[in-house]
Amino acid sequence: MFGKANPYNLDCPSRDFLALAGGKWTVLLLCALRDGPMRTGDLKRKVGGISQKMLVQTLKALHFNGLVERTSYGEVPPRVEYRLTTLGHSLSDLAAGIEQWVVSNYPEILKHRESGRWD
Amino acid sequence: MFGKANPYNLDCPSRDFLALAGGKWTVLLLCALRDGPMRTGDLKRKVGGISQKMLVQTLKALHFNGLVERTSYGEVPPRVEYRLTTLGHSLSDLAAGIEQWVVSNYPEILKHRESGRWD
Repeated sequence: MFGKANPYNLDCPSRDFLALAGGKWTVLLLCALRDGPMRTGDLKRKVGGISQKMLVQTLKALHFNGLVERTSYGEVPPRVEYRLTTLGHSLSDLAAGIEQWVVSNYPEILKHRESGRWD
Repeated sequence: MFGKANPYNLDCPSRDFLALAGGKWTVLLLCALRDGPMRTGDLKRKVGGISQKMLVQTLKALHFNGLVERTSYGEVPPRVEYRLTTLGHSLSDLAAGIEQWVVSNYPEILKHRESGRWD
């Protein structure tokens, strides 16, 4: 039985998911997958600096939560593809919004940083 | 001199900001501040389970990046209020979208978790 999620409540399990949903690797991977299915190696090349460990761990979490589908083709060498589910697509819209916001507003953020106003 | 931000690039400084922007404490604090200026104690009560350290650290980062303003009133005991800047308001719209998405879609995510499909 599960009532309405409230991530402000420490004990609400949605809190964990909120941490996953906005995480930088999640945002970058969800955005990368918007162009279509990708293999692990493609994702690793696309998302600069992601370690194999964080890539596998984040894909597993996204899969576990129903945001990506994993298709393993019975080929040698093995080929595994990841693609967004309908649920994943809807979250990737928000992820793309955050990514776009960062790209658009980064110059203004830099100005704030340079002015170094702490109060 | 700063070109177009590209958070896919490991060396782009926007990467750090992306990590801040989507972080769970950032999302919860930006959403909490949408109702108006708040004091540190109010924020701590609102965001269940946030430690004093993470609260201060996240507020500092939000302030440093121009997303919140900090007003210190010359009173005894000291009174300090935080409020969203225009830039902060625009990011809080996206944060509210993520929070709302989590609240709306959490039941479906739970179903995926319970089905335990790993492939």
